[in-house]
Amino acid sequence: MTTDPGTSAPGEHATTAPAVPPEQSEREDELVRRVLGSFDGCTDQRLKQLMQALVRHLHAFLREVRLTEDEWGKAIEFLTAAGDITDDKRQEFVLLSDTLGASMQTITMNNEAHGDATESTVFGPFFVDGSPEIEHGGDISFGASGEPCWVEGTVTDTAGRPLADALIEVWEADADGLYDVQYGDDRTAARAHLHTDHEGRYRFWGITPTPYPIPHDGPVGKMLKATGRSPMRASHLHFMVKHAGHRTLVTHIFVRGDEYLASDSVFGVKQSLVKDFTRQEAGTPTPDGRELGRATWSKVRFDIVLAPAGS
Amino acid sequence: MTTDPGTSAPGEHATTAPAVPPEQSEREDELVRRVLGSFDGCTDQRLKQLMQALVRHLHAFLREVRLTEDEWGKAIEFLTAAGDITDDKRQEFVLLSDTLGASMQTITMNNEAHGDATESTVFGPFFVDGSPEIEHGGDISFGASGEPCWVEGTVTDTAGRPLADALIEVWEADADGLYDVQYGDDRTAARAHLHTDHEGRYRFWGITPTPYPIPHDGPVGKMLKATGRSPMRASHLHFMVKHAGHRTLVTHIFVRGDEYLASDSVFGVKQSLVKDFTRQEAGTPTPDGRELGRATWSKVRFDIVLAPAGS
Repeated sequence: MTTDPGTSAPGEHATTAPAVPPEQSEREDELVRRVLGSFDGCTDQRLKQLMQALVRHLHAFLREVRLTEDEWGKAIEFLTAAGDITDDKRQEFVLLSDTLGASMQTITMNNEAHGDATESTVFGPFFVDGSPEIEHGGDISFGASGEPCWVEGTVTDTAGRPLADALIEVWEADADGLYDVQYGDDRTAARAHLHTDHEGRYRFWGITPTPYPIPHDGPVGKMLKATGRSPMRASHLHFMVKHAGHRTLVTHIFVRGDEYLASDSVFGVKQSLVKDFTRQEAGTPTPDGRELGRATWSKVRFDIVLAPAGS
Repeated sequence: MTTDPGTSAPGEHATTAPAVPPEQSEREDELVRRVLGSFDGCTDQRLKQLMQALVRHLHAFLREVRLTEDEWGKAIEFLTAAGDITDDKRQEFVLLSDTLGASMQTITMNNEAHGDATESTVFGPFFVDGSPEIEHGGDISFGASGEPCWVEGTVTDTAGRPLADALIEVWEADADGLYDVQYGDDRTAARAHLHTDHEGRYRFWGITPTPYPIPHDGPVGKMLKATGRSPMRASHLHFMVKHAGHRTLVTHIFVRGDEYLASDSVFGVKQSLVKDFTRQEAGTPTPDGRELGRATWSKVRFDIVLAPAGS
């Protein structure tokens, strides 16, 4: 049997191709043909395409690694444990997709690069509809712990024209690495929305992002540990930006110098999204004259470029 | 991007390769490289091989079909629903593996053909340890409904030598398509074990196998329905045969002429396992003189050949 790894990307080639006798290989081929054929009567052409492609790649995987019956049993146990821990507040299958890069690949495919439009990244599970609206220069923290961070920038189209009244949703974890919804007490903090002014500008006070682990007390956490991977996400601040006639942007900005940029557990980091969060000494005058006393603060600029709708 | 379907088997080639701009393809490649690289530090070499192969094939699948974000969401919902219905009596992830042919492929790979040794097939979820022992010519039904079926044959090695005292476990569904354990009332029926005599022979009364559906009230059942597939299993009788120095055989025999042979929902049918169950008119003398009154009965011969251990 030849085992082709299935894509042309560098680094994706199997290192070993086990020798399988031709008669055995033919039995395995024949089984794949039967499974593929079972979907021939599917009248939904897209579903048929998805199921047949899934079968081809699944069997190619099983055959390449020569999965043992014991390993098959462990895979079933893993999925069962993922189902057990999943409820309306915990989604282990999303974590699995995230940590295998499948979420990021889906986002990458569905948000193709368009000129110098800002790149997208993973949405994550912590967005909540109905965040508080703030004025320009308002504070999204609503009591969440963390170092103040001044965030400002513009929203433009790919021709550089300012986009007025664009909706900007922002949300982030606090200094303890938790989003408001993770406290389970109905608090709303470290999330808000605002609109750009007539020159496409926005500005607000947030919290300097800090790293935190994805939930790692379940089977996905065990997988990360067993494979020597970290559950940590690189420090980031979430944005979702909407403007009529433009593609909705779901993205983060990351902190240049963050220790987890190269090992983000969900593969969300893109170089164009890494920004300078400039640390300010205590007492440094703030952009809007706000008095922060003896607190240090930081500032970051994020100019956002929206691709046209349908691009 | 070139999308190679990932194996050399006939019928496994993608029919369309979507055109993806080179810059976009490079972004997708780069992401795959990053995910693969995240497992570079895994010290368990087999686990590393499994995870990296899984990532390669998973991403190749996503990219070949250009999975949409909506479809990704439906896949997460499917897995979540499979987790919800799974408990200590229902295993939807095993059903999923079965209906995608992954269980059968794993069995096929781990029980390679060896001369004329009897072929193996899926174990299924209905075997129970500690079945009653019966004498030669005994009845395994213990009150289970169905037409009586005389089963006889021999157990030999691949050189044709009879294997005395081989353990034969047999189990099957009743005429209503249910195994004893599915009634939830602790009954034991339509299952037993016996041993071959000094000439390697065995014989017993069972039930003529009839078709039945796999559990199809969950997400796997919905998938089968949406794709136009039947949940029915071809009629069969389970065997597990053990003898010191020989590879344990887990298999079924199927009924020649059964309407589901070509569409068995878990792909368990192998031509060498399809046997003639000869229907006998009521009143036809039975092999052991048992009096069956006005009942029809059937008989089948199944000569079993065990491969050497470690083959």
